[in-house]
Amino acid sequence: MRITTISTLVLAGSVLFTGALGASSVRNEPIQPIEPAEVTDPAKVQLGKKLFFEPRLSRSGFISCNSCHNLSRGGSDNLRTSIGHNWQEGPINSPTVLNSSLNLAQFWDGRAETLQEQAGGPIENPMEMAFTHELAVEVLASIPGYVELFVDVYGTDQIDIDMVTEAIAAFEETLVTPNSRFDYWLRGDDDVLTAEELAGYQLFKSSGCVACHNGPNAGGTSFQRMGVVEPYQTDNPAEGRVAVTGKDADRFSFKVPSLRNVELTYPYFHDGAADTLEEAVDIMGRLQLGRVYTEEETAQIVAFLKTLTGEQPRIQLPILPPSGPTTPRPQPFD
Amino acid sequence: MRITTISTLVLAGSVLFTGALGASSVRNEPIQPIEPAEVTDPAKVQLGKKLFFEPRLSRSGFISCNSCHNLSRGGSDNLRTSIGHNWQEGPINSPTVLNSSLNLAQFWDGRAETLQEQAGGPIENPMEMAFTHELAVEVLASIPGYVELFVDVYGTDQIDIDMVTEAIAAFEETLVTPNSRFDYWLRGDDDVLTAEELAGYQLFKSSGCVACHNGPNAGGTSFQRMGVVEPYQTDNPAEGRVAVTGKDADRFSFKVPSLRNVELTYPYFHDGAADTLEEAVDIMGRLQLGRVYTEEETAQIVAFLKTLTGEQPRIQLPILPPSGPTTPRPQPFD
Ligand code: HEC
Ligand code: HEC
Ligand code: HEC
Ligand code: HEC
Ligand SMILES: [Ca+2]
Ligand SMILES: [Ca+2]
Repeated sequence: MRITTISTLVLAGSVLFTGALGASSVRNEPIQPIEPAEVTDPAKVQLGKKLFFEPRLSRSGFISCNSCHNLSRGGSDNLRTSIGHNWQEGPINSPTVLNSSLNLAQFWDGRAETLQEQAGGPIENPMEMAFTHELAVEVLASIPGYVELFVDVYGTDQIDIDMVTEAIAAFEETLVTPNSRFDYWLRGDDDVLTAEELAGYQLFKSSGCVACHNGPNAGGTSFQRMGVVEPYQTDNPAEGRVAVTGKDADRFSFKVPSLRNVELTYPYFHDGAADTLEEAVDIMGRLQLGRVYTEEETAQIVAFLKTLTGEQPRIQLPILPPSGPTTPRPQPFD
Repeated sequence: MRITTISTLVLAGSVLFTGALGASSVRNEPIQPIEPAEVTDPAKVQLGKKLFFEPRLSRSGFISCNSCHNLSRGGSDNLRTSIGHNWQEGPINSPTVLNSSLNLAQFWDGRAETLQEQAGGPIENPMEMAFTHELAVEVLASIPGYVELFVDVYGTDQIDIDMVTEAIAAFEETLVTPNSRFDYWLRGDDDVLTAEELAGYQLFKSSGCVACHNGPNAGGTSFQRMGVVEPYQTDNPAEGRVAVTGKDADRFSFKVPSLRNVELTYPYFHDGAADTLEEAVDIMGRLQLGRVYTEEETAQIVAFLKTLTGEQPRIQLPILPPSGPTTPRPQPFD
């Protein structure tokens, strides 16, 4: 809801935002500040946090959402492609969960419309948590400490998978990163950016990066072809958005990733092939805009991108309730 | 130091402890309260915390100390034996790191004398993190955010493995769990235990469990044979203390595990074969004491054991500094 509204406003053009830190007006720029999360149901968020850290949602009892979306590391795993159940090599780079609520859809190809819809995926993906929804619910229902929490939040001890994914999504909605240095600048603080960073932002705008990387998430507002001017070379078989729409025009089109916290979410691109921001910026310039940046220009853009690192969510590590006498035991080595 | 002192005093017999919650005297019992951690060097502890959660200390960039000693789960992984690098099946059950500073030595066979000595092990164990000390130090030294922290703590940017393991040990020393309900009772609160729990404790003392499970950690004070009266049946090839001493008398002798937080650290025994506390208590009674408890007696002892669950350390999830341009990238699928 809030997401759509913000994106629409930003795309509509000239908007005055009311900053969360006061009633000051926000600069009229294609990137807009991130607002702090408003928690309306703290009990649900706390339950969702436990579930996000819960290895018992996986067949092995070893892999949780946080394994691949490590909140100590910008919400991703910093691997080219993820390690899943039984050390299987994943097909695609793990995107961050930070600010993912601000994206128009979830996954590189946008095949999940909402965070809740998304959260059902990894639990039963044989390459990831390799479990089933039925078994995950059976495990939770056998843990007295969880049953109590579900009763508190949902008023019933009849746990179902929709409650599980809804609670996870409610937690994920809190994983926003406001108050980056760039956001302070957007709210009017002229001194917070260096000349190099500002020059980088001007170049980011003037050369056309903002056509795709815009809105509060500096991305996440559209699907775009990877390799507009020049094709992208990769061994990765991912086809992009066409997998969802079936339209040939969407072949090799991916959700434009957020550039928020991009300093933390290396390696880059859906195949994780670019190790550094310098490399990623160089590729974007050439492939999307037909432009070859000088080393100095690249350094300026990279300096700007690093100002998008926001306040990381302060997470108190959850304490997970112990298994009960009837809880199925994990069998990681079957 | 503190550890040795406490153990010595407890073994010596009748001691008056000065409770941390006041100057009240402590009951004269074979189990003594756990004292809260005294943090003398907070910067070192914070560095050690980051390292404890640091997957880049492993070859894959995926496994950290917290993977197998999950502080959301009582400091262990709740698996029979651990999952290590490349999903290798570990040889033995992962003991908790909670209160491990109170143990007379580290590992089931006590082959590490101190936490610092222990911490070097898993990093270069091919079944666990599968890295080398040299590479681990090289990775840390290439991460600007870590270099800064090592300079703060050690006054030099020349990181070495001893600094790494010392900082981890300093963090682990804070992982104590004071203020369990049993500790409140030890400090004089008569009403905090139920009749069943008290009966369980009386039985635990009168039948001889305290001969081995004593001291503030309710264990960790000696090595003892597993299967005193009757042999223990297991497929696990671990030989126990003999691996360290070479003495035949130490064959199948293991460090007596702490019973602190034992409610959380299932499954039980060095092979992780017992899923429930009921099972573990039954086995201990028969094998160590030649005593078969009734169901009611077992329930009483289990109820007592659950009063040993203390306050879990409140951990703010650390934010790990991003890799630098020269940081070696993980190669999990080599
Ligand atoms: C084994 C690794 C792994 C695990 C476990 C895992 N994920 Fe993911 N996650 C990924 C990968 C890889 C993708 C990208 C997949 C794609 O786009 O096709 C992804 C995508 C996502 C996205 C979409 C982000 C975006 O902007 O597109 C969200 C949100 C997410 N995961 C949340 C979760 C939650 C919640 C869990 C636990 C229930 C979880 N993940 C478990 C690897 C993992
Ligand atoms: C035509 C649309 C478009 C334009 C213009 C564009 N990008 Fe992108 N950008 C994308 C898409 C799509 C991806 C994801 C591609 C992939 O992973 O295959 C991406 C990915 C990135 C990434 C990697 C993010 C990550 O987490 O993997 C960076 C950094 C980036 N862009 C920066 C820039 C910069 C700097 C410019 C200007 C030079 C720019 N982009 C121009 C669409 C665009
Ligand atoms: C892959 C799983 C795994 C990883 C990773 C791991 N451990 Fe362990 N840890 C174990 C197992 C299994 C044991 C028992 C080994 C034995 O006794 O022979 C153990 C034992 C210990 C002990 C001894 C506790 C006691 O009371 O005897 C401590 C302390 C410890 N680990 C700390 C760490 C630290 C610190 C790290 C990271 C540097 C780490 N572990 C990484 C599985 C792991
Ligand atoms: C002679 C020494 C001795 C006596 C007496 C003894 N224990 Fe133990 N206990 C041990 C040892 C050694 C182990 C570890 C054995 C192993 O893992 O192979 C252990 C393990 C345990 C465990 C599992 C802990 C874990 O984390 O794996 C529990 C629970 C336990 N004992 C409870 C009891 C109870 C209850 C009694 C009395 C009925 C008792 N013990 C009597 C030495 C003893
Ligand atoms: Ca990435
Ligand atoms: Ca155990």
